[in-house]
Amino acid sequence: MVKIIFVGASGDVGQAAFAELSQRHDVVCIGRKTGDVRADISDRSVIETMYGKVGAFDALVSAAGHVHFAPLAEQTDASLKMGLENKVMGQINLVLAGLKRLAGKGSFTLTSGVLDRDPVVAGTDAALANGALAGFVKGAAIEVPPGLRTNMVSPGLLDVSERRYGALFPGHERVPSERVERAFAKCVEGAINGQVVIVE
Amino acid sequence: MVKIIFVGASGDVGQAAFAELSQRHDVVCIGRKTGDVRADISDRSVIETMYGKVGAFDALVSAAGHVHFAPLAEQTDASLKMGLENKVMGQINLVLAGLKRLAGKGSFTLTSGVLDRDPVVAGTDAALANGALAGFVKGAAIEVPPGLRTNMVSPGLLDVSERRYGALFPGHERVPSERVERAFAKCVEGAINGQVVIVE
Repeated sequence: MVKIIFVGASGDVGQAAFAELSQRHDVVCIGRKTGDVRADISDRSVIETMYGKVGAFDALVSAAGHVHFAPLAEQTDASLKMGLENKVMGQINLVLAGLKRLAGKGSFTLTSGVLDRDPVVAGTDAALANGALAGFVKGAAIEVPPGLRTNMVSPGLLDVSERRYGALFPGHERVPSERVERAFAKCVEGAINGQVVIVE
Repeated sequence: MVKIIFVGASGDVGQAAFAELSQRHDVVCIGRKTGDVRADISDRSVIETMYGKVGAFDALVSAAGHVHFAPLAEQTDASLKMGLENKVMGQINLVLAGLKRLAGKGSFTLTSGVLDRDPVVAGTDAALANGALAGFVKGAAIEVPPGLRTNMVSPGLLDVSERRYGALFPGHERVPSERVERAFAKCVEGAINGQVVIVE
């Protein structure tokens, strides 16, 4: 059993990962509106405060972050930056601020999604954000201090997300939640580093 | 022969692409400090003005954009955003603003680099930016209006860049400039769409 800081447990991916990890670990949930500690990760100083409140930990898991779904013709500099500011820099700042605090051994597990490899209409901001996170994880993994690991889970549309998001993903395979659960277990409890774990 | 707006012809990749394309096409060079039209693509309104000055065109080629090289432990929210603001959103804004102006037939060709697939120390911002651009190109390509195409060239370290950047890329293969030239020709003169053309 390790102590896990879990950001974004309220979304569909987050719920699956939380259900799996909370069976075996001490999970502290961080959320904007719910959770053991309230924090909006789009604000770097709030992240620092959150880490200070939670104290020592062994792993950080993030399934947090928003992107802006809109047709390409309606996307603007500002709307595309929503994904970069929130989903991308929010999760990256969790790593940057956490590196100093996670000494010796531990892991960061971020979350992206399918749309940078299998795009859909109106999904450009998601594709941009997912690609950015994949690049970051690949680049950062060779520079994290010895004993630390950084990975990412990149799931397709979950079966439980069908009702809310299904219409945006015509023909995409729906991914059983238990497969997503296992991907997070692999990242947190395994020994991989620098990997994007694709779940399709 | 088509009319090409070429942004960033002064860098090593840009020089190679320019050398190739200018043999057969009418190339209008856009640069911060040099070029037929001066423009800093990090400012969206400057991009609009640039397009207005140049008028009708058939293809946009960009080899522009900066990232911040620094060890991961020294990277911050602000330093990582340099790549996102400049290399990523600069090139993306060239596409967004250009889509309205490039009617019927034409192409956008952006430039990334090797570091999101083969990382080096201090290259996290480059990996982040390259991954973001790859996601954008993949996502945008299925939504550009019929007849338009969006691609990206992702070269390894050019042989001509050895003196300036070689020390940052230990053991990376050096890529002959003529291979990079052909990749840009493929994107501009061919018919591919949504592809990241890897040159290694």
